[in-house]
Amino acid sequence: RTLRIGLIPGDGIGKEVIPAGRRILEALPASLKLKFEFVDLKAGFETFEQTGVALPDKTVETLKNECDGALFGAVSSPSKAVKGYSSPIVALRKRLDLYANVRPVKSVMTATNPIDMVIVRENTEDLYVKEERTYAAEDGSKIAEAIKRISEKASFRIATMAGEIALRRQKIRDSGAASIHQSPMVTITHKSNVLSQTDGLFRSTAREALANPRFASVGVEEQIVDSMVYKLFRQPETYDVIVAPNLYGDILSDGAAALVGSLGLVPSANVGEGFAIGEPCHGSAPDIMGKNIANPIATLRSVALMLEFLNEETAAAKIYAAVDGNLEEGKLLSPDLGGKATTTEVVEDILRRL
Amino acid sequence: RTLRIGLIPGDGIGKEVIPAGRRILEALPASLKLKFEFVDLKAGFETFEQTGVALPDKTVETLKNECDGALFGAVSSPSKAVKGYSSPIVALRKRLDLYANVRPVKSVMTATNPIDMVIVRENTEDLYVKEERTYAAEDGSKIAEAIKRISEKASFRIATMAGEIALRRQKIRDSGAASIHQSPMVTITHKSNVLSQTDGLFRSTAREALANPRFASVGVEEQIVDSMVYKLFRQPETYDVIVAPNLYGDILSDGAAALVGSLGLVPSANVGEGFAIGEPCHGSAPDIMGKNIANPIATLRSVALMLEFLNEETAAAKIYAAVDGNLEEGKLLSPDLGGKATTTEVVEDILRRL
Ligand SMILES: CC(C)[C@H](C(=O)O)[C@@H](O)C(=O)O
Ligand SMILES: CC(C)[C@H](C(=O)O)[C@@H](O)C(=O)O
Repeated sequence: RTLRIGLIPGDGIGKEVIPAGRRILEALPASLKLKFEFVDLKAGFETFEQTGVALPDKTVETLKNECDGALFGAVSSPSKAVKGYSSPIVALRKRLDLYANVRPVKSVMTATNPIDMVIVRENTEDLYVKEERTYAAEDGSKIAEAIKRISEKASFRIATMAGEIALRRQKIRDSGAASIHQSPMVTITHKSNVLSQTDGLFRSTAREALANPRFASVGVEEQIVDSMVYKLFRQPETYDVIVAPNLYGDILSDGAAALVGSLGLVPSANVGEGFAIGEPCHGSAPDIMGKNIANPIATLRSVALMLEFLNEETAAAKIYAAVDGNLEEGKLLSPDLGGKATTTEVVEDILRRL
Repeated sequence: RTLRIGLIPGDGIGKEVIPAGRRILEALPASLKLKFEFVDLKAGFETFEQTGVALPDKTVETLKNECDGALFGAVSSPSKAVKGYSSPIVALRKRLDLYANVRPVKSVMTATNPIDMVIVRENTEDLYVKEERTYAAEDGSKIAEAIKRISEKASFRIATMAGEIALRRQKIRDSGAASIHQSPMVTITHKSNVLSQTDGLFRSTAREALANPRFASVGVEEQIVDSMVYKLFRQPETYDVIVAPNLYGDILSDGAAALVGSLGLVPSANVGEGFAIGEPCHGSAPDIMGKNIANPIATLRSVALMLEFLNEETAAAKIYAAVDGNLEEGKLLSPDLGGKATTTEVVEDILRRL
């Protein structure tokens, strides 16, 4: 099988980690019978400055018509509002209907307090519809409003995805993988005590989706988002799969990343029907760009995650194992993990373990 | 001076901790020349079940016309949407225009990694305006929308309050109090990379408010909310004052509470012009209600915080010191802190130290 992968490095350290993602795909063992072709694509703030467009149509069209998957690096947010600029990754998620943002947060099993959870974030609506307006109050001062939109459809499919992921994780456990969890569990996060209609709809629809007999073995519980953040830090080991509307998912996944020591370890995949974009959870980190010290692990794991959603689970497992090998040995670590290794050294150590 | 204080226990353990708040006010040394009168007031889910109204007008009117301040316990959120019920504390904040929710999160100075921050949360708008509607999509499925409203006025006054609090904290440090901070700093939290108009307005208005020469000595920085949660856990000791729109403030304060070991330690005050309601950050905790094991410290500190905003700083300082004494000794702690003491024992230990 030949997979055609779009490469969108974006800004800052995106340009250093996406090439690492390409290298690991090229280094996969021949026995897997997987071939890769790559297409370089543009998006980001630099692209905006050069062309006036942050997400060129050509990038979207090429992904849609020619690619099986993609890797996205990171984009810089301008430090002041810039007219006409808006985040290309948010636009890309919507234009390709990549309705789920899947973010596994996992420590190595040898950690003192191992954790192993996946945050399944709705990726197309909520406040991310970006419908805003500004008007003047009677006294001339400004008021701005934004729409938070929650639909039954999007809530249903994201909760279903969370249920499927919970089942898949249980299957891997049943096949003998070491794990801290006994049985599958989905935690629905919302703030329906304040937002009874929007988050109330998310909550009741998620319950309905997870009541499908297909998920009979999956436990279902709920946490109000503020309390969820509290518990995430007090008892992170109890969480298996967390499903949340877009914005809470964004916040929770950064919070969970803090638990494993660095955003530089946490991958994500933007997933739609038959298409997935791997994307490290970290940003463009302008402070360390060009120094060859960015942690490539979030990207390498995002490559694996993308492969999982393209049904190449064996290849994915090889990458995860190679990364875990590097972390468990702990000799070649990037500075965010307290080490001194360069991006290149970490990548090469992981390639050796493939 | 005689202060008239409304007591609103609400539901669950609210009924156990608010009496503790009353006791500490009554136990303040006579040398302070402070007298207290108390008015018992109703609100909460139980009140709703009994009367059909969660926040009786009488409670609001009595607070407005007869009281100098109040203590609010906690309210239970029904486990399913209940027609006509909506959170009385959210309504109370708006009806009394208690525009700031001030939440100090502080470990004892003898902690291994001491932290000492205040979250200053806007308390009247954002998604808490609760303007929601539900409609049918073309295919008949449901869509719900909520308004997130951010005004220049509310953003300006909350940022000004944050600046004032930063100055006040510095003054206390200047007078020789031990502290982990050298100089005052306000961190503005927002998500303007997605919500350029609403959170953009919060951001630019907060910047403007803090550019007042009055705050010349106050450092100002910004954090995007997801990154803020990450940093809150990675380097909490660096934060002095955090200012945030309503919902982010809600989430951040629970997150910060996790850092000091228990929500049972974290106080808050809902503050308006000349009025303040002390309110523990924890909920009604139905699982432990009636057992006399709720941690009263969040409430006792909320009493002190209320007194600070009523300009009774000496009385407040006495309560803080008595609470710190109890925690530093660590002999009589409630179960949430790993101890075995009852609510009554903790309260009595603290009263002894007054
Ligand atoms: C850059 C930003 C628009 C984005 C988001 O909010 O989704 C980022 O925080 C993420 O989590 O991928
Ligand atoms: C109970 C709930 C409505 C409330 C809020 O969201 O403000 C609570 O979480 C708080 O922080 O005081």
